[in-house]
Amino acid sequence: MAVPGPGYAITARVEVPSSASAAGDLTMAVGRVGGVVTAFDVVEAATATLVVDISCNALNEAHAQEITAALEGLPGVHVRKVSDRTFLLHLGGKIEVTSKVGLRNRDDLSRAYTPGVARICQAIAANPADARRLTIKRNTVAVVTDGSAVLGLGNLGAAAAMPVMEGKAALFKRFAGVDAWPVCLDTQDTEEIIRTVQILAPAYGGINLEDIAAPRCFEIEARLRELLDIPVFHDDQHGTAVVVLGALRNALRVVDKKLTDCKVVVCGVGAAGSAIIRLLQSGLRREDPAGDVLAVDIDGIVHADRPGLDDNLASIASMTNRSGATGSLADALVGADVFIGVSAPNLFGADELATMAPDAVVFALANPDPEVDPAVALQHAAVVATGRSDYPNQINNVLAFPGVFRGLLDAQARDITDAMLLAASAAIADVVTEPNASFIVPSVFDASVAPAVAEAVRAATAKKDVAPV
Amino acid sequence: MAVPGPGYAITARVEVPSSASAAGDLTMAVGRVGGVVTAFDVVEAATATLVVDISCNALNEAHAQEITAALEGLPGVHVRKVSDRTFLLHLGGKIEVTSKVGLRNRDDLSRAYTPGVARICQAIAANPADARRLTIKRNTVAVVTDGSAVLGLGNLGAAAAMPVMEGKAALFKRFAGVDAWPVCLDTQDTEEIIRTVQILAPAYGGINLEDIAAPRCFEIEARLRELLDIPVFHDDQHGTAVVVLGALRNALRVVDKKLTDCKVVVCGVGAAGSAIIRLLQSGLRREDPAGDVLAVDIDGIVHADRPGLDDNLASIASMTNRSGATGSLADALVGADVFIGVSAPNLFGADELATMAPDAVVFALANPDPEVDPAVALQHAAVVATGRSDYPNQINNVLAFPGVFRGLLDAQARDITDAMLLAASAAIADVVTEPNASFIVPSVFDASVAPAVAEAVRAATAKKDVAPV
Repeated sequence: MAVPGPGYAITARVEVPSSASAAGDLTMAVGRVGGVVTAFDVVEAATATLVVDISCNALNEAHAQEITAALEGLPGVHVRKVSDRTFLLHLGGKIEVTSKVGLRNRDDLSRAYTPGVARICQAIAANPADARRLTIKRNTVAVVTDGSAVLGLGNLGAAAAMPVMEGKAALFKRFAGVDAWPVCLDTQDTEEIIRTVQILAPAYGGINLEDIAAPRCFEIEARLRELLDIPVFHDDQHGTAVVVLGALRNALRVVDKKLTDCKVVVCGVGAAGSAIIRLLQSGLRREDPAGDVLAVDIDGIVHADRPGLDDNLASIASMTNRSGATGSLADALVGADVFIGVSAPNLFGADELATMAPDAVVFALANPDPEVDPAVALQHAAVVATGRSDYPNQINNVLAFPGVFRGLLDAQARDITDAMLLAASAAIADVVTEPNASFIVPSVFDASVAPAVAEAVRAATAKKDVAPV
Repeated sequence: MAVPGPGYAITARVEVPSSASAAGDLTMAVGRVGGVVTAFDVVEAATATLVVDISCNALNEAHAQEITAALEGLPGVHVRKVSDRTFLLHLGGKIEVTSKVGLRNRDDLSRAYTPGVARICQAIAANPADARRLTIKRNTVAVVTDGSAVLGLGNLGAAAAMPVMEGKAALFKRFAGVDAWPVCLDTQDTEEIIRTVQILAPAYGGINLEDIAAPRCFEIEARLRELLDIPVFHDDQHGTAVVVLGALRNALRVVDKKLTDCKVVVCGVGAAGSAIIRLLQSGLRREDPAGDVLAVDIDGIVHADRPGLDDNLASIASMTNRSGATGSLADALVGADVFIGVSAPNLFGADELATMAPDAVVFALANPDPEVDPAVALQHAAVVATGRSDYPNQINNVLAFPGVFRGLLDAQARDITDAMLLAASAAIADVVTEPNASFIVPSVFDASVAPAVAEAVRAATAKKDVAPV
């Protein structure tokens, strides 16, 4: 099912005997072993020899070596060097700190630094609220991780988490003009993480928690929300929930169902699943106090009497499954209108899909391999979404976090409410004016998304007293 | 003695009746109350009225109000608005985070973020040393403070320290291409500061401690040096010591004396004074094992038998004053070749200066008011330096820290030795090819300083095994 993508792109510098067929021979050799050529550049052209850079997408490291071997195997061809374009891009890191003020002469120095800066310090000491006006706090978010759940890769630690956090910072700036800084903590102790973030907080206007393992992430988020006077957002929870609910809003438009009439099954009760359930319930109950969801994890349907529930599962059990259903994922799926999976690959197939309600909506978001083969799902369900970029309807957090923080920072928000998150999710959905089965979420490159999300969050911040959750 | 400077610059927007003398009337009004006009711009010119922006330097806030009143007092003149140029420059903060990689399309995203970034994370997890190659660690320094000794202003706390740390970050980039990030800690507990920096360290290639009060700063620095595998530099200590020793090198060239023949008095045994003494001793003893310095603080000459010495003073006592001298600053100055003050304003005058050795060198670095009036000092001493920009020979840390960290980062240094600091100080001095009494240190805008310092530090790093201190 996997196809070669740009995440594994190489550029091979190759010497090849000059001939009319040289270019064709090289591209065909790559194609024969399943590589996808993306660029072909002649670097030197001598009488007898050409030197070309041939760029191609591969599946993985072994495949890149296979492509290289295929090139080497051509008569008279010599591969001088193979560069990994992803590694090249990361050399020296992906972000930098730049000055917004000119420092050309002594007058500039006297204002930006000593002695002039002393007055700014004194102004903030006298009126701490001025920090939002006179320092970077106004526009700056800490992207905080302990490296315990880096992407789907597991517990890699602080240093190895940096490339993700740097990438996140780059996205924050690119999509919403937010200054974000990677804060990779070399501790995985809950209390130390909480205390460290508290100690660092004065410089920041918001905290974006990232890739912190469940269930630790729940306590860290909850405690920091209590302790800090700036908003705390855990992207793996709230970012995912916001985009999922936005996509669901449009999916239900496509199948013409109301959420309050739907049987919704959420599979996976880690950070993402728990937040999706909480936000769903929060939205549902505003429409219908009896609105309900079924949560399913590796041990089956979550219900209050199931033995061994931890704090988070107990909390989820208390807010879901009012009918007291028990059983497996397959049991839960019978008659379900909506499946939302944030769990593990290949959990079910056509048989279970066939038991779902007509015009079912299937979000199979496990990465890189979804809970159900999307091609199979499409034969049964009306709308299918995944976390992958090579299918329609990619559920991508980039749709949420830049705009959410743009709105929070502009509003100088001190916390985040479900009302703000629900407003953000509606804003993402409403960017798509005419949703259809292949188009329930906007492109991450749609420049109208972040401003719409930011505006929705700002508006929700302004009236948060009437929308408490 | 104070003169209006650009740290207190205002721009007044003024309506004035059109006349041939309007401009002259305004600038004369400012001058009469001691303001210095730096710019005069006509904004609107109607038949009857001119609107002009008049920029001027003032002494302080009261003086700025006096200037405004002087303008208002002119017949027919109305001051519409007065802007403080230092505050204007600080709106929104002085630094930002920018992406070094383009994020134009999905391929870019796939390399800089998921899925491609996963391979970079895995590479670092497998080989932690790759963090210096594939993340911002290679070029990034944390500027760490607890806000306990902000400039000369005292204990203003973390938030109010931000403008200084942001300014420092801007200077790091401007003068040496170093990415620096303000880390303002909302704790003043020594153990918490140490632990927090340790937890944050993996993302950084170096730690610049800043504006942390003595004696806490000594323990924090020493412990972090033990704990971390990246260099820890305390600018108030080591930056100042490096520039002072560089300036002293050239001052002694001007008076044609050898350091080992000099009686050197250091007044002030806080962060700066202690570091100056330690680095002086370290350099001196390489030349002459008997090389010595006299330290003086508010209680007089420091000697081992003085009661009530704290750990730092006891350490200073053990390495200075071999002759066992006692007494006051005035006693210490008798016959002194060199006075270095990093203490308090107006401690002595002409009488004490007259007792110094011929061709004395006086560095009176207390800010903003030196230990001795520099004009008076110049009547007795051969070379005088201060911390101020309105006299020749300004001792300014900007000469040291950018180049020092450029060198440390380039060398991927794991610690800092006195040999590196001495090399940096010699490099600063040697940028001035022909020092004279008014030119013992280069301008902070001399573009050759940071590269020379960086190169000296790199070279010292390479041979640090032969130059341990």
